Amino acid sequence: MAGLLGELPVEITAAAARRVMARCDELARVTATPGTVERVYLAPEHAQVNRLAAQWMREVGMRTWQDAAGNQVGRIAPAGADADEGPAVMIGSHLDTVLDAGKYDGIVGVLMALEVVRLLRAPGGGIRLPFAVEVIAFSDEEGTRFGTALLGSSAVAGTWEERWWELTDANGVTLRQAFREFGLDPGRVGEAARRPEELIAYLEAHIEQGPELDRAAEPLAVVSSIASARRFQLTVEGEARHAGGTPYDMRRDALLGASEAALAVERVCAAEHHIIGTVGRFEAFPGAVNVIPGEVRFSLDLRGEFDGERDRVWQALSAEMDAIMGRRELRWQAREIHRAAAVPCAPLLQDVIRAGIVGSSPARSEEPPVVFSRAGHDGMALGAVTGVGMLFLRNPDGVSHHPDESVSAGDVARGIRALTEAVLHLGAEPG
Amino acid sequence: MAGLLGELPVEITAAAARRVMARCDELARVTATPGTVERVYLAPEHAQVNRLAAQWMREVGMRTWQDAAGNQVGRIAPAGADADEGPAVMIGSHLDTVLDAGKYDGIVGVLMALEVVRLLRAPGGGIRLPFAVEVIAFSDEEGTRFGTALLGSSAVAGTWEERWWELTDANGVTLRQAFREFGLDPGRVGEAARRPEELIAYLEAHIEQGPELDRAAEPLAVVSSIASARRFQLTVEGEARHAGGTPYDMRRDALLGASEAALAVERVCAAEHHIIGTVGRFEAFPGAVNVIPGEVRFSLDLRGEFDGERDRVWQALSAEMDAIMGRRELRWQAREIHRAAAVPCAPLLQDVIRAGIVGSSPARSEEPPVVFSRAGHDGMALGAVTGVGMLFLRNPDGVSHHPDESVSAGDVARGIRALTEAVLHLGAEPG
Repeated sequence: MAGLLGELPVEITAAAARRVMARCDELARVTATPGTVERVYLAPEHAQVNRLAAQWMREVGMRTWQDAAGNQVGRIAPAGADADEGPAVMIGSHLDTVLDAGKYDGIVGVLMALEVVRLLRAPGGGIRLPFAVEVIAFSDEEGTRFGTALLGSSAVAGTWEERWWELTDANGVTLRQAFREFGLDPGRVGEAARRPEELIAYLEAHIEQGPELDRAAEPLAVVSSIASARRFQLTVEGEARHAGGTPYDMRRDALLGASEAALAVERVCAAEHHIIGTVGRFEAFPGAVNVIPGEVRFSLDLRGEFDGERDRVWQALSAEMDAIMGRRELRWQAREIHRAAAVPCAPLLQDVIRAGIVGSSPARSEEPPVVFSRAGHDGMALGAVTGVGMLFLRNPDGVSHHPDESVSAGDVARGIRALTEAVLHLGAEPG
Repeated sequence: MAGLLGELPVEITAAAARRVMARCDELARVTATPGTVERVYLAPEHAQVNRLAAQWMREVGMRTWQDAAGNQVGRIAPAGADADEGPAVMIGSHLDTVLDAGKYDGIVGVLMALEVVRLLRAPGGGIRLPFAVEVIAFSDEEGTRFGTALLGSSAVAGTWEERWWELTDANGVTLRQAFREFGLDPGRVGEAARRPEELIAYLEAHIEQGPELDRAAEPLAVVSSIASARRFQLTVEGEARHAGGTPYDMRRDALLGASEAALAVERVCAAEHHIIGTVGRFEAFPGAVNVIPGEVRFSLDLRGEFDGERDRVWQALSAEMDAIMGRRELRWQAREIHRAAAVPCAPLLQDVIRAGIVGSSPARSEEPPVVFSRAGHDGMALGAVTGVGMLFLRNPDGVSHHPDESVSAGDVARGIRALTEAVLHLGAEPG
């Protein structure tokens, strides 16, 4: 099938991909911890990458603003419109990172969106679209600083929660204080919210953060849905006692209980299809070499394709923990810090992404793969206000959230073509 | 058997014990973290408690100095001597603490030593002893700040190691820098060392830090030896990857390997007599809720009555860890950060302590219990330069290294009488 882009020379998208890769490198140098990549919500590095993104948005002719939650936005008017009015197709991803992050998770999607706009406005008047196009660089997709993810995209979706203001970072700074220090007014966060009638769709390109495409030797995939997730902060309490003087029969060692719990998460989840549970944070207190840990706090991240399956596994894990902690005379409790229902990608947008992949790859004869995303994405929040479509890029060996995270320039070029095609298909769709 | 103290009214030692308890409370208020007890080596709180101890030493007639490693010392001359010369019986313990500590571990032993001196110099000319008596308040028995314990007592024993200067605290401050900031000259630490001919014995009273005396309803015990110990810093390395995107068959989760290792420590040690292994510190990196831990660092504290048994258990644990990490495709390594051979208490000093307990408790008909100390003590270092004798005080429920740590005023009074008797017996010993 011939794509709507027609005979667009591959040199054009190859150059676009090279620009994306160079900018990923440039953004990686904006970091709180030199030698690693670390940009968290409302930190000075957040402001710095927003300024860079805004500059690049203006370079492709976009009007730009930073919204009331700190997301950076650019917009071009519908072709031939007298005024910049009417609904937009929003394309984007996020620029914040985990600690010791890679260079591509989120970032590559924002930069690809800019190249899509550049192609749409190529010399010769560009391509005429019946809608505005916005590019958005979200912040706090990862939840690194305040533990609660998707803060930026939740503001855009209008699902901001008042209780978030009292969330604190590792230094005890509340989200409210951080807003003020960044120059934002907490009282105006509602202004970041978009109404359903302002948006036609939200499209996002992202690396897979898993090995399935790499294993299947496929560069791109249509995403069918974004995983259902729940996150918990768990606390196990025992008794801190002297390491040498306390015989085993008098110990109530919180670390051993929590260790058993972490292994139970692996055992219970691994026995299920499409359920992944991870203990990522794990802190023992008081944390002295010669004191039995009296308390352990750890996180649990649970993901599944379906909400019901995910909840059933949490029930099973709770029962396991009751048994473990009961046997060891420990107390345990869990506080849910995040819950997201599985978000199905809109069928129309899945079709459009599929057509984009097919149209941009004339040589391929097979249907592109359709995968579900075990990783969370800003689309999970955006789903509350508009349809979501996602394109995955092959992620070599599936390494993500790690300095070794990678994506090839060739796949980025393919992705830019596919995403541009998808936007054109959306313009060609009736109504 | 009538004690050498003769008819010393119980009111005298009861008042001494009340003073010890009140001073324990007073010292507990000197803390780096209000609401908890926390005094680490060379911190401002260390200087502050040294000043208090020096004041109390002078109050009972002692000449005082802070030695070249930051230990606080007081001395009284032999009875009737023209000059303050000749060897001393050194009595003491330590004033530094673990994090979130109790009020008595170490502290009570220093304060009891001061009451022994007060009794020896009681109105009426006091008791004539053929040797000087020194009271010493060690610092860094616990190793809280630099990970290596017994720094203060090692300096006194003359076993200071040059490599320690580069040890760093949690803020990256080296021991060398900390010395200078405290006002000590690293180049002069050797001046703290005492020669064997300067010391007759080192005696220490300490709470048991275990439940054996409480279970046996015995207030005091003779210590036969101080446990053999080894401490390791272990590192498990896997791969930090995205929590959602990485299927179980591609994970190399350092946290799960380390959790298995912690449980193996419990399983292997609990199967042995007189061996205790504890994982007290445990840190997962990068420590984000949505990242599989790529590295875990944890401590292992191993104690046993005999060196050979302890080393055999470490060999068994190493084999377990090879198996666990091999199965999970993780790398692991261990760095030994402390090793101490079991230190037997000197037979003569065990006799003297036994006589002290018996002589101060005319009502008791049974021999006092003899126990070995699973906890480490400054005597482990002092053993290199003089004989060591230890008296244990009952520790209710064995709670130590914890705010609930306690000792009764009654047991402290009994301990003061016993320790004073022991010193008198030492004075009465031939040679």
